[in-house]
Formats: sequence, C-alpha cells, structure tokens
Amino acid sequence: MTADRTAASDSEHLTIAIDAMGGDHAPGAIVEGAIQAVQQLECRVVLFGDDAAIRAVLPAGELPDGVEIQPTSEVIAMHDEPGAAVRKKKDSSVVRTAEAVRDGRAHAMVGAGNTGATMASALLRFGRIRGAARPAIGVPIPVPFAQPHLLVDGGATVDCSPEWLVQFAQMGRAYARLRLKVDEPTVGLLSNGEEAGKGDDLRKRTYALLEGEPWFVGNVEGRDMMSGHPHVIVADGFTGNVALKTVEGTMKAAANLVFTTLGAPEVKEAADVLAPLLLQAVTDYLDPDTIGGAALLGVDGVCVISHGSSSARAIVNAVALAIDCVRGNFVDRMQEAIVGEPAGAGVTEEAYAS
Amino acid sequence: MTADRTAASDSEHLTIAIDAMGGDHAPGAIVEGAIQAVQQLECRVVLFGDDAAIRAVLPAGELPDGVEIQPTSEVIAMHDEPGAAVRKKKDSSVVRTAEAVRDGRAHAMVGAGNTGATMASALLRFGRIRGAARPAIGVPIPVPFAQPHLLVDGGATVDCSPEWLVQFAQMGRAYARLRLKVDEPTVGLLSNGEEAGKGDDLRKRTYALLEGEPWFVGNVEGRDMMSGHPHVIVADGFTGNVALKTVEGTMKAAANLVFTTLGAPEVKEAADVLAPLLLQAVTDYLDPDTIGGAALLGVDGVCVISHGSSSARAIVNAVALAIDCVRGNFVDRMQEAIVGEPAGAGVTEEAYAS
Repeated sequence: MTADRTAASDSEHLTIAIDAMGGDHAPGAIVEGAIQAVQQLECRVVLFGDDAAIRAVLPAGELPDGVEIQPTSEVIAMHDEPGAAVRKKKDSSVVRTAEAVRDGRAHAMVGAGNTGATMASALLRFGRIRGAARPAIGVPIPVPFAQPHLLVDGGATVDCSPEWLVQFAQMGRAYARLRLKVDEPTVGLLSNGEEAGKGDDLRKRTYALLEGEPWFVGNVEGRDMMSGHPHVIVADGFTGNVALKTVEGTMKAAANLVFTTLGAPEVKEAADVLAPLLLQAVTDYLDPDTIGGAALLGVDGVCVISHGSSSARAIVNAVALAIDCVRGNFVDRMQEAIVGEPAGAGVTEEAYAS
Repeated sequence: MTADRTAASDSEHLTIAIDAMGGDHAPGAIVEGAIQAVQQLECRVVLFGDDAAIRAVLPAGELPDGVEIQPTSEVIAMHDEPGAAVRKKKDSSVVRTAEAVRDGRAHAMVGAGNTGATMASALLRFGRIRGAARPAIGVPIPVPFAQPHLLVDGGATVDCSPEWLVQFAQMGRAYARLRLKVDEPTVGLLSNGEEAGKGDDLRKRTYALLEGEPWFVGNVEGRDMMSGHPHVIVADGFTGNVALKTVEGTMKAAANLVFTTLGAPEVKEAADVLAPLLLQAVTDYLDPDTIGGAALLGVDGVCVISHGSSSARAIVNAVALAIDCVRGNFVDRMQEAIVGEPAGAGVTEEAYAS
C-alpha cells in the first residue's frame, strides 16, 4: 500500500477521501471545502456520505470535476461511543472513508467528525505500522507570530508505557520534519517541572529512556505550551488531551476578557480600530482553521483529523496537509523513525510488541 | 494546636509567620507586603530571614508596631531540591516559618519562595491531619468577570491513588466553602472527555468512587478551566500542575498577541484608550497577585503559598487568606471533610492509611 501511494504521488493528482458527514457544519462546510481544495490544490476528492444531503449543498446542484460522491447509509454522531460505533456502523461515512485508503482507492483521508471514531476507523481499517505499539495524535499548538509546535499525543492513547512515549517522541520528530520543515526537531517531555528528577513515575521512567538523545531537551512544563519550544512536546494521550483543551479553555477566557472590554460603549471608537486587527491576528495565528488539522501517527496510512467546528477553510488546510503527508512519504517516515533509528537505552524489540 | 488557634482567633489579632526570604522580589516586596498587611488587616506578622537584609528594606529603617523579625541564617533558593533542602537547611527562613506555626507562636504561615520547599516545610513540621493520606495544593484558577474556581491538586502529590483523589475532592469542597463562600460546592474530575467512560485507569477508578455523590458533576475537561464551573476541579498533582502551567503559558501567549497588536504605531491612539482598560481587567481578574495564594490541604496547620513573583499586594492577599483560613477553622474543616463525611462507595478506612 505504501509503495502504491508513493508511486502515485509523483505522477498524478492525489485522491483524498473525505468524510462529508463529519463535523458541526457537515455536510455544507465539508463539501464547500472539498470543492475549494480541488480548485486550489492538485487533488481529486471523494466525498463519503448521504448522497442526497451532499447534492443538496452543491453549488448549483452540480458535481464539479474532480469531486466524486460515494453514498453511505450511516453516520457516526459526535457523541457516539467511538469503538462501538465503528464496529457497528459498517456503512458509516467515516468507516467507508478509511476503507477507501485501505483499499488503495484514495491516498489519504480527512475527517472532521467524532475524533475518536475517525481515529478508530483509521486504526482498525489501516492497521498499525510495523513495530508501532500504539497510535498517537500529532496536534499543532499555535504560537503567536510563529509557526506552531506539535503536541504528541493529543489523546489517542490514554494509558501509556515509557516505551510508547519513546515511540511518540520518535514519530513526533519524523512528523515535525514534514510538518514544520525543520531538519533536527527537538523534543521535550511534558512534566510538572523542568529538573531531571521531576515527574510522576511514568515521566521519570520515560526520561531515563530518552536521556542522552541529542534531540531530547529534557522536561518541559505546561507554561512551554504555545512558546514554540521545543518543536515536539511528548505526553501520554491523557495528559496531552488535558493540556490541549486547557489551551482552548484559557484562550476562550482570554478572548472573553478582551472582547468584553472592547465592547464597552464608551470605547467604541477605539475598539472599532483595534477589534479587526485583533481578530486578524487570532485568525492568522490561533485559529485551528488556519493552523490545520492533526495527523494520526503510527497507523499504516494518512489520516488527518480536523476539529469538529471545521469551516470550509479548515477542510482545505486539512486536505493540503494530507497531500503534504502523502508526498512526504509520511508512512515510510514513521516506520523509519520507529525501527530505523536507535531507540533510547533500555528499549528493546519486545517493548515494541503490541 | 488546633484548639489554641481557634481560641486565639476570636479574641485577639492573629499572628502570621512569613518567610521574608522567599520569592523573586524578596525580601523587599515581602517586607513591604507584611507591613501593609499589619496596617490593613487585624494581624501581627513575624518575618523570618536575614536580619540585616530585612532591616535594610524597612521604610526609614524602623520596625513598625506589629512587625517582628526572627533572624535565620540560611535560605532555600528557588532551584534547590525541596526535600533535601528542608532536611539540610534547618535554620532556613522557610523551615523556621513553619516551626513557628507548629510551636504555636504563629497562627499560620505564608511563603512565596520555592513552592516545593514551602510545602515540604509545612508537611514535615506540621504533619498531616488524621486520616489524610497525602497533601494537595488548592490553587485558585482565575475566571474573567467572576470569582475563581479551585484546582486540587496543583502539584503536591504527583503519583496518586483513586482514594487519594477522593480525599482531594472532599478537602477541596471544604476549602471551597471557606474560600469561595459557597454552601454546596460542586466537584468535577479533570479528564480527557466528559462522558462517564472517559479517562485513564486512575480516572476511571476514581469516577467509580465518586459516582453517586450529589456534589460530583462527573468528568470535566481542560476546556472547563477558567470557566468557573465546577467550583472544584480535582486532579492528581502531575496533571493538575500541567494544567495550571498550561493556563499560564496560554495566557502569556494571548497577552503577547494582544499587546503586540496594540503596539503597532499606526493604532497608537486607539491603543492608548484601550490598553489601560485591558490591563485593569487583567489585574482585576487574572493577576495572581489579585486572586491570591494557594493553600496546602491535608496538613495540620495553615500554610498559604504565594507565587514566586509575588508583589507586596500578593503578600497582603496571602496574609488575608491565611487569616480567613484560621478564622474559618481550616484545619478542623479539612479533618471533618475526611473523617466526618461519608466517603464514596468502596472507600474504606484502610484506604486512608498513609
């Protein structure tokens, strides 16, 4: 499968499978974004979902060139339990999207629906790459006036072993090369203090495995989130998800403070000058629609997960990321990172067994 | 000890022991804050630290009424390893501060130095209250235009059992009654999703123990941080510390975005109108100097931990919180919360053994 995708990527437009039913604004925003992606990027798209619902949101009811519909009969909702839903709803849009990649009918998939179900579909239909113990989500964390850094894992694997975190670091580096275009990405371990002795039992054991790697900067703290340093922040999926959503909660509170203050009638004139600039800065550097989707690391295929409230622009960026991943031989790079690089001291082949 | 403090609290000015050498701006800001506290609040203060250094920052070189110096010969620095430092530096300002409370010479302590050392001093000198397995830090999380909510544990106990998290919930409620003045505080468990089945192994087992408590709202997410709901967010000290510092990092990034945007020369006029309002809102609702210190829950005495960069105002607020805790019978309330309230199903007396 990997070889096919690689071959195809150089000679022709790529085909991206998209879950048209996933996301708060589906299928409208998804279909709109997919059409824009075909217009702006060198790709074709296949939309999986309810045929009538998709056609109803097509501009002028026409299916543009390069856009195909694959009708499916089921939808996994945002609050469905992911594992059970993927097993039961075999004709759901997201499961069929993943199958298109598995079967070589598409080079990559994009989904903005139930994150757990998107991840589970990719994991179950693609399978894991050789040696990868568990999958991880590589999520871009925005940095004002700079490019994002990457949090790995954003929530795929909640209970982790130290060896799995070492793999997250290795895959995170490979992904950072592709995503951030840096040659030698640095990696930090998210902990409760910078000193070497800090951390809970999992962190202390992981630190011992990573110590000595030239790219390992040691422990980093929550206050390093959004600083851009290091390139990759490694965490178990539980801690990573808490940190990721704490960024969201804090940003929401900050926005509330700023825009409520700007909303006072007596400062309307000044606010009219500054509000558009602030909104533009937010759009440029903080908006998930701009900074793009997350990628699932450790699976045998390219799956880009866009957030639930994805706009058409978010979908274009997610498709662009998917194309970048395919052209950058994402799966091969992940594979090399795990089995081709020397692992931290004490990490044995057995540790990588699933 | 508890009885003495209670008796004293109604009939006379309280005495607060303060580590004068702890904090980035020590001893200047600490001494200034201590003097203001004596002027503004019904209390006396005892400053522990280097006699000459403290006297050098006294206004006009005079020791005001109600302020006493207890000379000490050692200081625990911000980056000293807390446990070792507290054991070795027996005449350090923070250890002597804690001893004053232990020996009944002060009703409560305030420290703005090395958080781990302040905590370790209180824990080792006060001891734990009966039944408390481990200490936890109750940290106020700011909420714009509202009062803070409380995160328990902010970093005292990094490796936790489910039973300890139940105690953190119980102590957190008792502390919220005192700190937030709410009769029936609600508690949520910080997790990677709201649904009951979400969480790592620790969260799932803790959820099972808390389920059925009328005040338990279930799992909450990082995005609930700074929302004000629920009153108390419970986490192990590792996760809590990551979340707390992620709030800091995110706030710093947001401030950078806003104030860099306001700093553009072409919007100077509008920025001159709005910047002071924004800074005032930040000071009123987000500034740790305003929202006050953290309290150490589970120890047999009152210890208020102020942040490292504490200003004089932060110290006044920390002393005010310490007084509130003493007058509110903090230690008795924590004790009752643990042994007097019915614990979650399955929590036995043995589970509370240290």
